[in-house]
Amino acid sequence: MNKVSLVLAFLLSSSSFADEGMWLFNDLPNEYLRDRYSFKADDAWVKRLMQASVRLNSGGSGSFVSSDGLVLTNHHVASDTLHKLSTADRNLIEEGFLARSHEQELKAPDLELNQLVEIVDVSEKVAAAVTPAMSPEHAVTARRAVIAEIEKESLDRTGLRSDVVTLFGGAQYHLYRYKKYTDVRLVWAPETKIAFFGGDADNFEYPRYCMDATILRVYEQGKPAKIENFLPWSDTEIDEHELVFVSGHPGRTQRIFTVEALKYLRDHRLPYVLDYLRRKEVLMQQFGLRGKEESRRAQDELFGIQNSRKAYGGMLAGLQDPKTMQEKVRRQQRVLEAVRSKQPEAAAAWETIARLQQQRVEILDQTSGFRSRLYDLAETLVLMAAEDKKPNSERLPELRVSNRDSLLQDLLSTAPIYNDLEQVKLTDELMRLAERRGGDDPLVVEILDGKRPDVRAAELVFGTKVGDLETRKQFVEVGAPLIDKSEDPMILLARAMQGEYQRLRKIRDELDEQEKQAYTQITEASLAAGSTSKYPDATFTLRLAIGTIKGYSQNGVEVPAWTKMEGIFDYAAKHAGQEDYELPESWQRAAAAIPRGTPMNFVCTADIIGGNSGSPVVNRAGELVGLIFDGNIQSLTADYIYTSDQARAVSVSAAAIRVALEKIYGAPFLADQLGR
Amino acid sequence: MNKVSLVLAFLLSSSSFADEGMWLFNDLPNEYLRDRYSFKADDAWVKRLMQASVRLNSGGSGSFVSSDGLVLTNHHVASDTLHKLSTADRNLIEEGFLARSHEQELKAPDLELNQLVEIVDVSEKVAAAVTPAMSPEHAVTARRAVIAEIEKESLDRTGLRSDVVTLFGGAQYHLYRYKKYTDVRLVWAPETKIAFFGGDADNFEYPRYCMDATILRVYEQGKPAKIENFLPWSDTEIDEHELVFVSGHPGRTQRIFTVEALKYLRDHRLPYVLDYLRRKEVLMQQFGLRGKEESRRAQDELFGIQNSRKAYGGMLAGLQDPKTMQEKVRRQQRVLEAVRSKQPEAAAAWETIARLQQQRVEILDQTSGFRSRLYDLAETLVLMAAEDKKPNSERLPELRVSNRDSLLQDLLSTAPIYNDLEQVKLTDELMRLAERRGGDDPLVVEILDGKRPDVRAAELVFGTKVGDLETRKQFVEVGAPLIDKSEDPMILLARAMQGEYQRLRKIRDELDEQEKQAYTQITEASLAAGSTSKYPDATFTLRLAIGTIKGYSQNGVEVPAWTKMEGIFDYAAKHAGQEDYELPESWQRAAAAIPRGTPMNFVCTADIIGGNSGSPVVNRAGELVGLIFDGNIQSLTADYIYTSDQARAVSVSAAAIRVALEKIYGAPFLADQLGR
Repeated sequence: MNKVSLVLAFLLSSSSFADEGMWLFNDLPNEYLRDRYSFKADDAWVKRLMQASVRLNSGGSGSFVSSDGLVLTNHHVASDTLHKLSTADRNLIEEGFLARSHEQELKAPDLELNQLVEIVDVSEKVAAAVTPAMSPEHAVTARRAVIAEIEKESLDRTGLRSDVVTLFGGAQYHLYRYKKYTDVRLVWAPETKIAFFGGDADNFEYPRYCMDATILRVYEQGKPAKIENFLPWSDTEIDEHELVFVSGHPGRTQRIFTVEALKYLRDHRLPYVLDYLRRKEVLMQQFGLRGKEESRRAQDELFGIQNSRKAYGGMLAGLQDPKTMQEKVRRQQRVLEAVRSKQPEAAAAWETIARLQQQRVEILDQTSGFRSRLYDLAETLVLMAAEDKKPNSERLPELRVSNRDSLLQDLLSTAPIYNDLEQVKLTDELMRLAERRGGDDPLVVEILDGKRPDVRAAELVFGTKVGDLETRKQFVEVGAPLIDKSEDPMILLARAMQGEYQRLRKIRDELDEQEKQAYTQITEASLAAGSTSKYPDATFTLRLAIGTIKGYSQNGVEVPAWTKMEGIFDYAAKHAGQEDYELPESWQRAAAAIPRGTPMNFVCTADIIGGNSGSPVVNRAGELVGLIFDGNIQSLTADYIYTSDQARAVSVSAAAIRVALEKIYGAPFLADQLGR
Repeated sequence: MNKVSLVLAFLLSSSSFADEGMWLFNDLPNEYLRDRYSFKADDAWVKRLMQASVRLNSGGSGSFVSSDGLVLTNHHVASDTLHKLSTADRNLIEEGFLARSHEQELKAPDLELNQLVEIVDVSEKVAAAVTPAMSPEHAVTARRAVIAEIEKESLDRTGLRSDVVTLFGGAQYHLYRYKKYTDVRLVWAPETKIAFFGGDADNFEYPRYCMDATILRVYEQGKPAKIENFLPWSDTEIDEHELVFVSGHPGRTQRIFTVEALKYLRDHRLPYVLDYLRRKEVLMQQFGLRGKEESRRAQDELFGIQNSRKAYGGMLAGLQDPKTMQEKVRRQQRVLEAVRSKQPEAAAAWETIARLQQQRVEILDQTSGFRSRLYDLAETLVLMAAEDKKPNSERLPELRVSNRDSLLQDLLSTAPIYNDLEQVKLTDELMRLAERRGGDDPLVVEILDGKRPDVRAAELVFGTKVGDLETRKQFVEVGAPLIDKSEDPMILLARAMQGEYQRLRKIRDELDEQEKQAYTQITEASLAAGSTSKYPDATFTLRLAIGTIKGYSQNGVEVPAWTKMEGIFDYAAKHAGQEDYELPESWQRAAAAIPRGTPMNFVCTADIIGGNSGSPVVNRAGELVGLIFDGNIQSLTADYIYTSDQARAVSVSAAAIRVALEKIYGAPFLADQLGR
């Protein structure tokens, strides 16, 4: 390598860092796009991409891909719905699904899709309501009230879902207005064997061969919705190093975090969460061992748990890398030096954050809820009865008027509830409560009521009526008068937990409030010191990420950017005998029909994180070229630091989806609708 | 039911409690056997059973079943050896094994069998060496010295393995003399599919259908050992309610524990251990997902971990049952009342125990070792170099002269070590150390050496030479001069951990010593108050348990005592599609040849616990009728309380083993040797 190319390599390497960013749609990095990529995102381009992007309340992203309401997302995002639509005799997760007519499309029991329509900066109004002199308790109340007022006023005036979003750790507040779609139907899903090809072993790895895609359709007034802004479809393979965009809803990053806050994650929070996840993983596996139907009932939740366990494990590994922390320390010292020279009093905010982490450690293992659907329903009802007695401005955010429809969408879901699984889950939760608080704790003694956890859980699960939809409808209609008097055992349990719930909620809300104030100061001080990020941490709201299609080097091996559809057959053969690498029959049968060279999966440098799953990847023309479904293991540190040496976002190629529909799933009629 | 049968039922139910007990062979409950069962264990009967019983250093029990050295134990006890004898091309665990001649018998790489020859009460000598006035530190030293002296003197004089065993929590000390067998060879093992039929789901459950049996042979001077005392074999089915005996090595019970000590287990120790086990379970599963060979490498350890996880889970569930703790409180109060009225000062011992539990909580999550074979080897070498410089009487017990042969049997094992698995395990251990101590802890910083845990683990595992047998032999031969100067990275790691190891060892040894003294007082005070158990808690030494063959009632369903061999085919069919219930081909092929009515597994009320696996079950005539391999889930509380309403020991019937050898495994020649 000569000197010129060395310099070039350095430039490429350092400039690739610049693809960092989860950009707000009302504050896109236009200069950067112009300077680095000679790209101008005009208003029409931005509007179409923004309004073609949707958020799913099950926790992922998607996009409109046809004028008559087709939505493309991941199989693993839609799997919550697939699971809820499945029965012992029809396992949609395992078997897949294809509707050959509108009539065959299956309505999701509780899915809500949000399409972002407008963003309004309300920072000043929120900031004016909360003053530094307020106690944390007072500040929580004041902020809650002003946000409730803004949301309510917006909802009343526009009829749109209105959420005030906290940005830059609290330095900015934007009002997001969404059009809601609550009639969402399943159109097509492949088999899990191909959607999650390679299983837990290949999850967060690359190269990959996954058809992690599902197609839904939104309806309005019982008919396929007419969609103005949807994405055109491009089957053309893109050159390496070409520019792409990802428009989706990254769930949460913590890049603003101070070193002390990261150490709290590293030494306390992540180890705690991982213990929790492994516990639930083993529990769900055990339940699944009981039989085929039990395995089906547990599977979707088990996949979710395993996915989280692997993701958090990668995050922790990154934080335990001394080099990561050294880099974070270095950056913080640079900012702090600048801050100290310009406004020394602002440095106290970093100390505040450190102090708050100590308090977080103290309450880390204290929780007041139970991971059980029946308990969640009972808890929501009890909270609703209590909060509805207060003025809207004083209610907990999730129980505000502006959130009521979404809350009821969940509360009145028709999804099945499996009492055998509920009993096992609640048993474990009761055991866990007893472990954390000790068997002699008065709350534990009260709740176990003299019985073994498994016996008590059975009594609760088989005794409650909150699993019955009509009962819940009645509770919702009559409200507090009925709920407060209820002798339903699960409602009684939720009521018994209320004191602890409110106590912990108050502590956490006040910690959050104090962190918001400190991070506001940190953001402002950093900005004044000329050193801050131009994009806020992820908040499960719409963001634009910029990337280039690009392979990488790992352990001295070059990992190419693309895999091809035909490669999956060799890959499966290589893993013969491993269950997670068995191809579904549909693929085995269609092997010869797949056009050689069709791209299957690809990687790019776009800055994504959990929540981005299902995001469209578009080219300069704003055409859909791929579907985000994963990040590689090196990208898991993206939670707190973006890198692009090896970290990559992983997508299904649009071309593969079309080929699969046409050649494998016998659905050319559906392929024909894509992008039209 | 008329009045008479009600009374009878009551008598049966309460008298069945009397089958409690893990009796010392030098203090058998002769009166109880006479009064309840009209049975007299004469000296010849006792001697034969005692000397036919063996202990395996891999952690289980077994028995001599032929005059030429055949040993019967469980497949899951022998699986450690099966694993060590397996390779990528020959998976003995999965495929099973049969030697058709002595030449084909495979030598275990590091198995040691102990046959108890003699028990000598040395309580007075030990008690005389330790006085109440001594500090805990001094007491540890004094007790260690006197025990080392007794063991050394016995070894020198008899040539037998000589272990001083602590009984009744410290109130008695007995010297156990064992004949050792270190040339142990594999004769027959069935496939895991049938040995562990039903897998993790059926583990600790009943009814069962498992052929959890393996046959070994001991050799002396390269020839099958001549065994004087072996068990005759009985294929006759025994009547329900008939008397049986179990002679084996229960590992550990905690029935002497005070209520506060049990609460420490319930609220701290068991939750901690379960978190640890689930962590390792998920880790080993993940490694196994990499491929077939990786799965084989991880499998034996994974099974062991899952077995422990389920066992500890059952123990915790029992302790979390308020009724269990109420019963323990009631019993303790009764003793304490009696003690207070007769020798009030003795009640302080219960308070001492309570205080010591607090100290145990404080150091609960502090460890100094790593779960890695390579690390264990390095640690042993470093400890050996350090301890060998001291006089024998001052050394750590496991490094005494009297233990040296057994230590070397392990240290110089020819068992394969898999570096890929070692790296994964050590990575997890380094991460765990960093989690528990925090990433900034000086020891963590020193040990990670600026690298990510996985990178550091790779450096250690692939850099060390302790995995090489010749290197270890050299270390052992030269000793301290070579070990102390070694720059081997794993040796350096073990040396870096030495300070922490010694610090924690000292704390734990002194806590143990103080508990010994307190439990000695508790035992003596209870005895004086007329209320103590006549048998000591389990200590992984030979005990006799008494039981009756007896079914039980569970959730209103009668569970019969016996299952039949032919029943397994229906049971397998019922679980079609579940991998753990697939019968091996050998059984499918031989189905028609199995005599109908042959008993497969059975349950009895004998008082057993982990370590009893592989124990012979004998009838009044001292003939082998079964092979203990499990306890049901209700028996898991046996750790701290014996019950017999539902708790049962689970055995393979002797008849089934013979039928399997004759009709399924084509080994009538081996069946012919059993009991002869």
